Amino acid sequence: MVETHARRAAANGQAKFHLYEDIAARLARMIENGAYRHGSRLPSIRELSRQMRVSINTVMTAYGLLENMQLIEARPQSGYFVSSPLAEPDSALRANGRSLEAKPVEVGSRALQIIRTLSDPALVPLGASAPNSALLPIVRLNRMLAQQVRSHPLESGSYAPAAGHMRLRAEIAKRLVASGCTLSPEEVVITSGCVEAVSLALQAVCQPGQTVAVASPVYWTFLNSIQWLGLNLLEIPACPRTGISLDVLAYALRRKVIHACIIISNFNNPFGSVTPEENKHKLAELFAKHEVPLIEDDVYGDLSFAPERPPSVKAFDKHGWVVSCSSFSKTLAPGYRVGWMVPGRFRSKVEALKRLFNIATASPTQLAVAEFLANGGYGRHLRSLRRIYARQMVQVRDAVARSFPQGTRITRPEGGTVLWVVMPETVDAYRLYDAALEHGIGIAPGPLFTISGDFRNCIRLSTAFWSPEVEAAIKTAGELAAGLNSGHAPAADSVRQRLRT
Amino acid sequence: MVETHARRAAANGQAKFHLYEDIAARLARMIENGAYRHGSRLPSIRELSRQMRVSINTVMTAYGLLENMQLIEARPQSGYFVSSPLAEPDSALRANGRSLEAKPVEVGSRALQIIRTLSDPALVPLGASAPNSALLPIVRLNRMLAQQVRSHPLESGSYAPAAGHMRLRAEIAKRLVASGCTLSPEEVVITSGCVEAVSLALQAVCQPGQTVAVASPVYWTFLNSIQWLGLNLLEIPACPRTGISLDVLAYALRRKVIHACIIISNFNNPFGSVTPEENKHKLAELFAKHEVPLIEDDVYGDLSFAPERPPSVKAFDKHGWVVSCSSFSKTLAPGYRVGWMVPGRFRSKVEALKRLFNIATASPTQLAVAEFLANGGYGRHLRSLRRIYARQMVQVRDAVARSFPQGTRITRPEGGTVLWVVMPETVDAYRLYDAALEHGIGIAPGPLFTISGDFRNCIRLSTAFWSPEVEAAIKTAGELAAGLNSGHAPAADSVRQRLRT
Repeated sequence: MVETHARRAAANGQAKFHLYEDIAARLARMIENGAYRHGSRLPSIRELSRQMRVSINTVMTAYGLLENMQLIEARPQSGYFVSSPLAEPDSALRANGRSLEAKPVEVGSRALQIIRTLSDPALVPLGASAPNSALLPIVRLNRMLAQQVRSHPLESGSYAPAAGHMRLRAEIAKRLVASGCTLSPEEVVITSGCVEAVSLALQAVCQPGQTVAVASPVYWTFLNSIQWLGLNLLEIPACPRTGISLDVLAYALRRKVIHACIIISNFNNPFGSVTPEENKHKLAELFAKHEVPLIEDDVYGDLSFAPERPPSVKAFDKHGWVVSCSSFSKTLAPGYRVGWMVPGRFRSKVEALKRLFNIATASPTQLAVAEFLANGGYGRHLRSLRRIYARQMVQVRDAVARSFPQGTRITRPEGGTVLWVVMPETVDAYRLYDAALEHGIGIAPGPLFTISGDFRNCIRLSTAFWSPEVEAAIKTAGELAAGLNSGHAPAADSVRQRLRT
Repeated sequence: MVETHARRAAANGQAKFHLYEDIAARLARMIENGAYRHGSRLPSIRELSRQMRVSINTVMTAYGLLENMQLIEARPQSGYFVSSPLAEPDSALRANGRSLEAKPVEVGSRALQIIRTLSDPALVPLGASAPNSALLPIVRLNRMLAQQVRSHPLESGSYAPAAGHMRLRAEIAKRLVASGCTLSPEEVVITSGCVEAVSLALQAVCQPGQTVAVASPVYWTFLNSIQWLGLNLLEIPACPRTGISLDVLAYALRRKVIHACIIISNFNNPFGSVTPEENKHKLAELFAKHEVPLIEDDVYGDLSFAPERPPSVKAFDKHGWVVSCSSFSKTLAPGYRVGWMVPGRFRSKVEALKRLFNIATASPTQLAVAEFLANGGYGRHLRSLRRIYARQMVQVRDAVARSFPQGTRITRPEGGTVLWVVMPETVDAYRLYDAALEHGIGIAPGPLFTISGDFRNCIRLSTAFWSPEVEAAIKTAGELAAGLNSGHAPAADSVRQRLRT
């Protein structure tokens, strides 16, 4: 591809055929034919300059060119590495290029059974979307919990306000500046986790029988909620890198076929995609123009691998049509069940609903989280968490690239804890799930993330965990996939034996 | 009435006209004409025996007769007191003797506004149904919370099972023996309070458009939930002592006009009524026979003034049609948001819904409550709480009897923290609410507890609090009611002045 580019440049009589282009083309060929395997380290700039007898500058420019083309990637303090093959936008679009037909959701019993199974702690948690509790500051947070109930005993003896404790709301409003939002604490409503926030949002903005748009593939809990609330679903094609297709969404809004939309704007589950800032801006404007509520789930936003987290869509919301939802379940303590939402123009309705469903969220955990945000070093903790997750994302991606069958493509999330693997079309994700389960490995099959029946050759993998056991599990899963690809899976026993040796 | 009885006995030529009947009749007359005021102490048995020159036995028998007729009551270690006038079953039936017409609920904005206002901590909380936090073992419970998160840090780092922590479920199953239930821990599902439990129950058993029966008057949160879920409401007449009318309910079931029913079986909010054991038995059989789910809210059951608490309807449920709901909000800590339910045959649906709405209830508070139940002296705490609430029930009832206008009747709950006051028909509860609010006093007007527009001359009062301030507030409310009764309320200023002096 690089070579073609160079040749074409030459053929077109463009100004000059650069040496660095030639070098980039040769390296690209070596990557393509497997001389440099996915995930392997490339020679250092100095080494290559010596080997190829070219200047350091030329090598640097060649590497830069390959980096731009996403064939290689620089890793801080480690050098350059061959990127894992990236799932292309087309693949998702192709899989989901259907008509704009909204449908009621009916999650099958098999899917429900698999979802339940995936939270089984006995499995290697490649199918989980839960955080890695070993990386969470539980002990420190629990200490603050003890201290908070000691200093504020009366808060346990009365119901918190439905919208939550003002101190926590104020701390969240402060944190949301990092997401590009300037909000007053009164605009924040505390919930028992992000799932409750999205559920309250859906109930506040939709009537049964109305249609909710989602990016496809979609987090399965949204499917369950939409089904339960008697809503219809419209799956909008999405790009593994940039998320939901704005064009299709705009078309659906113009046609007035949707009454709300849920998106995970940052480090989407299951793609890992980030809606570009420009698209976020457009989304906020688009929904305001059509006066349709946009429910944003930003629960992964703080898990950006970059030093700065990306903004939320809420940051661009001038008219209150964006209902932003999030929680501390991925960054502090899932067991605390503390989440929040910024419901915009739906605030009083959301507050009334919250009061109706469980009066308020528990007080002690709210106070502990507020204290952690104020004095617990949340920023420092996030930096360390992001660093670890960034490293693990690479490790999992490389492990997949090493063991999954030829032709497998992987998304390249820049935050969060999941990635999406597109296997060759002959590999059936359900069969892979069954085979992996026999080996004590959980993986999330693609069809769980849609009602279309698509994504049959896709799986979602967690990157929240890394250990020799996880590495071995990915290897096993890859071998099982390869077996399915060639028509037969290796017998469970033989793989188990290999794992033991 | 006693006199009539004695005379009739004599006229009928019955065996003998007893001296004790004569004495009872004379005392009853003195109560009726106000010589002995409601709530005032009667002479001791010894005193009266001396005064009337009759034997101690005769006085004891006379007092026993008056007690049976609920004109007087014995109070342990204090002697005999004139009972406050009791609201008669008829009054409620009369107010609600409507046809069996189910209606969609629409709680008006005025009602919503009043409900919000009543939780304002600046008001004297006569309108509250919240517990008295000063009587709750908050400090001890918080200490257990601190200790539990220290010894089980990992529970904070992961989601609890949707149905809750097994240890808490086991402790609750043990406690439920006192309610007459023999259950396995697996049958218990933990929720974030009783309101969430009832909401999950309604959603598990009903479809929008179906009809839910309730005893009228009904706790307003049920009205809000039924409205929100798009259900229709059928108000069934209820007796202030024995709760929902079984005959009417059976009729509605035979006519197949209801799809579910919610009742507060013990110390009902707002009547304070208890469904008699025999009726509980019949209820369980009736609903099983018609295969209609019965949602039981038993959140006040543990607040019985008797040494033993009454059984729940669940105790008589052989076929799983009773969904029993409760919480620790009234007995331990409302701010903890820990409740539970025993969903019977709807367990897996309830569990799925719980998972869908907020994944699970927070772990630390679950563990703390489990520890308190196991090792915190919950039984001892309950005994002390019941004793105090029993005393306050009498104090509030007497204060009402002293200051509210002639003709006012009051329920006589044997547990819980609310009572129901039926004022003369000329007193409008909304006007009383407005007038009381001006004096910084919250009271809950009767029409909040119905969609029929009835109960306009009724109010619900909290008995959870007692202090000179509460006593003065009841006096003020009574005077305001008397003023409304005679057509003019005393000016706020003059009453305030009186309160200060």
